[in-house]
Amino acid sequence: MLPRRLPSCASALRKAYSTAPATANKRVILSGIQPTGTPHLGNYFGALTNWVHMQNTAGPEDVMLYAVVGWHALTLPQNPDALRAARNDMLAVLLAIGLDPKKSIIFHQDHNQDHTELSWILSCMTSMGHLLRMTTWKSRFADSKNMQAHASIDEGAMNAGLLTYPVLMAADILTYNATHVPVGDDQTQHLELARDIAERFNKTYGHVFTLPGIIKTSSQRILSLRDPTAKMSKSAPNAASRILLTDTYDQIKAKIRAAVTDSLPGITYDPVGRPGAANLLTILGACTGESPEVAAQRYEGKNFGALKSDLLETLNETLKVPRAEFEKIKADQAYLEGVAKDGARRAREYSSPMLQTVRKAVGLA
Amino acid sequence: MLPRRLPSCASALRKAYSTAPATANKRVILSGIQPTGTPHLGNYFGALTNWVHMQNTAGPEDVMLYAVVGWHALTLPQNPDALRAARNDMLAVLLAIGLDPKKSIIFHQDHNQDHTELSWILSCMTSMGHLLRMTTWKSRFADSKNMQAHASIDEGAMNAGLLTYPVLMAADILTYNATHVPVGDDQTQHLELARDIAERFNKTYGHVFTLPGIIKTSSQRILSLRDPTAKMSKSAPNAASRILLTDTYDQIKAKIRAAVTDSLPGITYDPVGRPGAANLLTILGACTGESPEVAAQRYEGKNFGALKSDLLETLNETLKVPRAEFEKIKADQAYLEGVAKDGARRAREYSSPMLQTVRKAVGLA
Repeated sequence: MLPRRLPSCASALRKAYSTAPATANKRVILSGIQPTGTPHLGNYFGALTNWVHMQNTAGPEDVMLYAVVGWHALTLPQNPDALRAARNDMLAVLLAIGLDPKKSIIFHQDHNQDHTELSWILSCMTSMGHLLRMTTWKSRFADSKNMQAHASIDEGAMNAGLLTYPVLMAADILTYNATHVPVGDDQTQHLELARDIAERFNKTYGHVFTLPGIIKTSSQRILSLRDPTAKMSKSAPNAASRILLTDTYDQIKAKIRAAVTDSLPGITYDPVGRPGAANLLTILGACTGESPEVAAQRYEGKNFGALKSDLLETLNETLKVPRAEFEKIKADQAYLEGVAKDGARRAREYSSPMLQTVRKAVGLA
Repeated sequence: MLPRRLPSCASALRKAYSTAPATANKRVILSGIQPTGTPHLGNYFGALTNWVHMQNTAGPEDVMLYAVVGWHALTLPQNPDALRAARNDMLAVLLAIGLDPKKSIIFHQDHNQDHTELSWILSCMTSMGHLLRMTTWKSRFADSKNMQAHASIDEGAMNAGLLTYPVLMAADILTYNATHVPVGDDQTQHLELARDIAERFNKTYGHVFTLPGIIKTSSQRILSLRDPTAKMSKSAPNAASRILLTDTYDQIKAKIRAAVTDSLPGITYDPVGRPGAANLLTILGACTGESPEVAAQRYEGKNFGALKSDLLETLNETLKVPRAEFEKIKADQAYLEGVAKDGARRAREYSSPMLQTVRKAVGLA
């Protein structure tokens, strides 16, 4: 068994929880990430460190479920070998950043068929109109075709999974009767749909589902190093626009050195007027646990060379342990398989009775 | 174990197989029926007796899978208690008419989650346009709302399952790599879709699926006793329009007595000019193994009283054993549960390796 750790910058994330609903009862927290390439800083500071923080501040009664959602990845074309590798790597990343299989249930979604069964059942009570109004499928479809205008999308050309994946997402949540789901701003409508479906189900068949609550995660976004008006993204063509969790010191150095800034004197935190500088300060602050404004004060009279140099060292320090852990875990495939198998077994312990309740409610058992 | 039998009129069905593809190899035959009420004569002579015939004429290598497709029933609103009862009764009917769990795999679709997993995977390679062009969802949706005109349907109001159930149907077939699927005329487009999806999958991921072949079943349709221009239907408001497999002698008598005929002298087989008479002759012929034209010759100078009287006795003779069997089997719930459990286990023996091949092909294993 490999050692597990808390990422060194987790303290920075506590403030993200100010909007979390207070509850005295046992919580069931569910979150998922798609296995489509190695996570970058945007994923890390946007979601993954939150997962670790939630795990490490959870009560003894809380159940934490973290899924690598392979079935969702199929909604866009994937190279099978790349998907296979990414699916394996993503599990290793989750363990490397500090998720602990003794504390959390870490599993592959596609190892638990209760998700797809429930997705079918729920799709029979979800209107097409509701799904067609979701904005995400349009942007995912547009992104996949490198299209700019969403208005010109031909709905007939899209695959059915791209329309119905919010129902699978609702099933991901409801199959565990999750009480809390951490979501970023762009995922709020998915959780709203899950709540709507749960509500309609309860109204039709009697009370079965708890309406899942939102844990609003930090809206602090990490932006592209090459175009700081856009989010850091896995799919942007320029690999220098993102720093991956597995990047080496030299790779981080080259990307930070090339990061877009401006030619104004000194350093100030001004997201609108100086987005490149603001983004570097945001990343630095995410590592040190400071707000970007506070971090900026240290560099008031300095130049970008000083900021970039400190950022490189601080970021490298933050990523050093997860990066080493990742390599260690990846080399131990038997351990990874054991974690996946055990995770799926434990996930099913929660979902199986839930599914049986659903089947009885609709008349299939 | 209760005794099993071949229905007495099975000989009449042999001719339905004239279009079945000749094959020297092992066949995997898959068919399904929705658990939405007791089957009537239309179901019996249209599909179910064919299943029994296929079973009893199968080669020793052939695999026959007959499913009660509960998940499909959910695409239209169902009363849970009624669905639960219908699901149980349908399995009893299949056994009562002569399907033999020692020869065929008889199971509940919703006991094998491989169907819904594969359905999700296939939905990611099925275009919305393809599904929206299917005519069946429109008629099912219209029927469910008692609407006449399909053109006025608001697609947004329909549930997503009603659009995507042809993908689940493709999964029903492909999860067993079925080589032969018996379909009526109104189901041909479903099989075409399954073939299209299988072909696209093979082209994208390498050869995985056999393209399922059609076994064209008899197009001889049993019509409503009250309106012989429409098919005999489970959902028609007038219960006297259909004869159920479980109807008693007295119920059959009342329905046949009230069956719509005409006031022309004598009996002739003229489906266009005398649809009521033609329908009674079709049912009689289905029981005796004659064509309706041949049956008509015996009644040339007679009246409807004579025809109806003979039909009542012949039909009652045909249904007597299945009806008694049905009651016996229904009374033995432990036997029914055993059949269902064993059927699901054997079904999974075929589907599990298939699913694993699919997962490997797409990159999820």
